[in-house]
Amino acid sequence: MKKELNGTDAASIALHKKLKGKIRVVPAAPIRNRKDLLLIYTPGVAAVAKLLATKPAEARTHSMKGRTVLVVSDGSAVLGLGNIGPYGALPVMEGKAALFKRFADIDAVPIVLDTQETDAVVETICRIAPAFGGVNIEDIAAPRCFEIERRVAERLDIPVMHDDQHGTAIVVLAGLMNALKVVGKKLAKADIVIAGAGAAGTAIATLLKDAGAKRITITDTNGIIRTDRADLSPHKRELASFTNPENKVGTLKDALVGADAFIGVSGPNTANAEDIKAMAPKAIVFALANPVPEIMPDEAKRGGAYVIATGRSDFPNQLNNSLVFPGIFRGALDRNVKKITQKIKLAAAKNLAATIASPKREKILPDMFDKKVMLAVAKAVR
Amino acid sequence: MKKELNGTDAASIALHKKLKGKIRVVPAAPIRNRKDLLLIYTPGVAAVAKLLATKPAEARTHSMKGRTVLVVSDGSAVLGLGNIGPYGALPVMEGKAALFKRFADIDAVPIVLDTQETDAVVETICRIAPAFGGVNIEDIAAPRCFEIERRVAERLDIPVMHDDQHGTAIVVLAGLMNALKVVGKKLAKADIVIAGAGAAGTAIATLLKDAGAKRITITDTNGIIRTDRADLSPHKRELASFTNPENKVGTLKDALVGADAFIGVSGPNTANAEDIKAMAPKAIVFALANPVPEIMPDEAKRGGAYVIATGRSDFPNQLNNSLVFPGIFRGALDRNVKKITQKIKLAAAKNLAATIASPKREKILPDMFDKKVMLAVAKAVR
Repeated sequence: MKKELNGTDAASIALHKKLKGKIRVVPAAPIRNRKDLLLIYTPGVAAVAKLLATKPAEARTHSMKGRTVLVVSDGSAVLGLGNIGPYGALPVMEGKAALFKRFADIDAVPIVLDTQETDAVVETICRIAPAFGGVNIEDIAAPRCFEIERRVAERLDIPVMHDDQHGTAIVVLAGLMNALKVVGKKLAKADIVIAGAGAAGTAIATLLKDAGAKRITITDTNGIIRTDRADLSPHKRELASFTNPENKVGTLKDALVGADAFIGVSGPNTANAEDIKAMAPKAIVFALANPVPEIMPDEAKRGGAYVIATGRSDFPNQLNNSLVFPGIFRGALDRNVKKITQKIKLAAAKNLAATIASPKREKILPDMFDKKVMLAVAKAVR
Repeated sequence: MKKELNGTDAASIALHKKLKGKIRVVPAAPIRNRKDLLLIYTPGVAAVAKLLATKPAEARTHSMKGRTVLVVSDGSAVLGLGNIGPYGALPVMEGKAALFKRFADIDAVPIVLDTQETDAVVETICRIAPAFGGVNIEDIAAPRCFEIERRVAERLDIPVMHDDQHGTAIVVLAGLMNALKVVGKKLAKADIVIAGAGAAGTAIATLLKDAGAKRITITDTNGIIRTDRADLSPHKRELASFTNPENKVGTLKDALVGADAFIGVSGPNTANAEDIKAMAPKAIVFALANPVPEIMPDEAKRGGAYVIATGRSDFPNQLNNSLVFPGIFRGALDRNVKKITQKIKLAAAKNLAATIASPKREKILPDMFDKKVMLAVAKAVR
C-alpha cells in the first residue's frame, strides 16, 4: 500500500507541474475582431454596466454571477492534513473547481485566504461575494467553521455551504441508508459510532439525528462525548445533548463494542481489526479520513466488516462529497434558492440513496461519473 | 451617432444575456475516470498540498498561481460612468478577464468588492492574493486608487498594477510618441494639455514627464492645476509641482489655446470644435473617455485636428489599455518580476510605439489583434 501511494503521489506532483494549475479561465465566446470587442468590452459593455448598477438582480442573468460559485478556504483543515495554510489548500481548491465544472457545468473560482482570523474570514468572503451565485466554504477547521458559515450565510443572499460539514453529512447519510439496507438493519435502531467531532462529525451527527437515528455515539480525541465531560466546547455540549443515550463511557474502542456502524471522520489509523471484531455482526465501516483512512479496507475486512467505504477513489464505495456538492449548487443556482436548509440536505441524501435500486456490499452508492447522481441531488433543492 | 450607440447597447445587452457571463472556468485536463480523479483530487492532491505548504514558492510552478491574475475593482470609477458599485463593475471585469486570455493566454479572475473603504479594499485584496501571480487593480477612483495601489504593492510579493493609471499612461505615451512623429514635433518641446487629474491623468502626466516632456498642463473640474490654487489635494499639489511651467491660468479652453496635443481622460463632451481650432497647427487630439469621448472624432476633425484617437474600438486609432496590460502581466509572470517600475513602463511604451515603423494619421499604433503588440510589451518587462 505504502509503495502504491508513493507512486500516486509522484504522478500527482508531476501532473500538477505539467498542468501548472488545474483550471483555465477562458472567454465564453470567441474574440475574433473589433466588432466582437465592441460588444463584450467598450463601448458596448457600458450599457450592461449601467443596467446592473441600477438593477443588481439582473447580474444573475447578465453576468457570471448566475453560473459561478466561490470555493474558499483559509487552509486551516485541509483534507486530513490539518492546518497547512493557504498554499497547501490551493491545489485542493483548484481540484474542487475542476470537479464543479466536470460534474455540474458550474464555473467555480478557487480563493485561498491569507488569514485564519474568524472576523477577517467572514468579512473577506462577504466583500468578494458580489460576483458569485453561491459560496462553497472548504477546509476550515472546527469550531471556527460553524461561526464562519453561520455569519456568512446570514449576511449574503446567496446559498452558502461548508462542504466538509454538509456535503460529507449528506453523502454519509445516503451511504448509510443503503448500507443498512444491505445488512438488513434500521436507521432508528442502529448503534452508530462517529469518530471525530470536528466539522464533518458534527454535521453528520446532526443530519443522522434529523433523519431519525436514535443511537448515535460520537468521540473526539478525549474519548466518548458525554454531558458530564467538563472539557466540552459549546458545539460539543450541543452534540452531547442528543447523542450517547446509553451513556457509554471510554474511548473510541469502547464505543465500538457492539456497534452496527462506524463512521470515521477523524484521522489516519485510529482503529484496527480488533476494534472491528468487537462490533455487532455485519458491521458497517465508513473510514473517510483523506488521504489515509481510519482503517485500511483490507484490515477492516480482516476484522469482519461487511460493508466498507472510504473517501478515496482507489477503493470500492468511495463516499466522497463530489457525489453531493455539484448537485446541491446546480439545484440552488437553477432554482435561485438562497439557503441550503436541513430539509434540502435530507432530501438530497434520500434522492442520492434512491439512485441505487438494490445496493450491494461493494456498491452502496453510484460512481460520481454516473449522470444520475448530480441530477438526483439537484432535484432535492427547491 | 446616438442611434448607432443605442444599437450597440442593445446588441451588447442581448449578448450578455445570451452568454450569462463572459468567462468560463474549465478543467485544464479532461476528467474521464477515477484514475484521473486520483491524481487531480484525493488522494494524489494531498502530496501537492503538502509540497506547497512546506515550499510556497513552488505554487508558481505547481498551481494556478503561476498563470493567474486577479482583476479587482470596487466599482468606484467604472469606465467613464463613475461610481456605479460592484454590480456595475462586474461585466467590465469579466470582459477584462476575457481579454487577458485572448491576448496573453493569462487566466484572470474577476472580483468586485462590496466595499469602497480604503483599508478594507487593501486588506481584502491582500487576503485573497495567495492564489494569484499578479494583481490588476481596475476602476477605483482617485485619489483612493493611489493609496490602495501603493499599499497593496508594498504588502505583496507579486506585481500589482492599477491599469487605469499605468496601462493608460503607457498606451498614451506610445501613441503620443508616434503621433508626434506624424506631425513632426518633439516630445520635449510639445505643449501638452491633459484634461482630467484623476487616476489616468495623474499617471499620464508623471510618465510623460519621466519620458522627457517639459510643457505639460493638466486640468480638473476647477480648471488648470497651478501651485497657487488653494483647493488642491496632495496628489494634485504633486502634479502642480512639475506641470504648467508657463503658468497658464483658466479653464481647459484656455489651456488648449496654442497647444500641440490634447489628451482627454476626463468625461464626455468637455471640448468642442472651437477649442480644437484654437490649438496649434497639426493638433493631436486623444479623446479617451469611455464610452463617450471628450469630443467626437468628426467634431475634432471639424476643428482641424490632424491626428485623432479615442478609447473605442469603433473609430480609427483606438488607444486602449488592451494594448498594454496583457503584455505587462505576461512579461511579469514569465520573468517572475515583482514590481512594475517606472523604467518598465517607459520601456513598454517605447517597445509598443516601435511596433509601427512609419506611423500614419489613422494608424499611430497597431491593432490589439496584431500579435506583435503583446510580445513587444512583454519584452519590456525584465
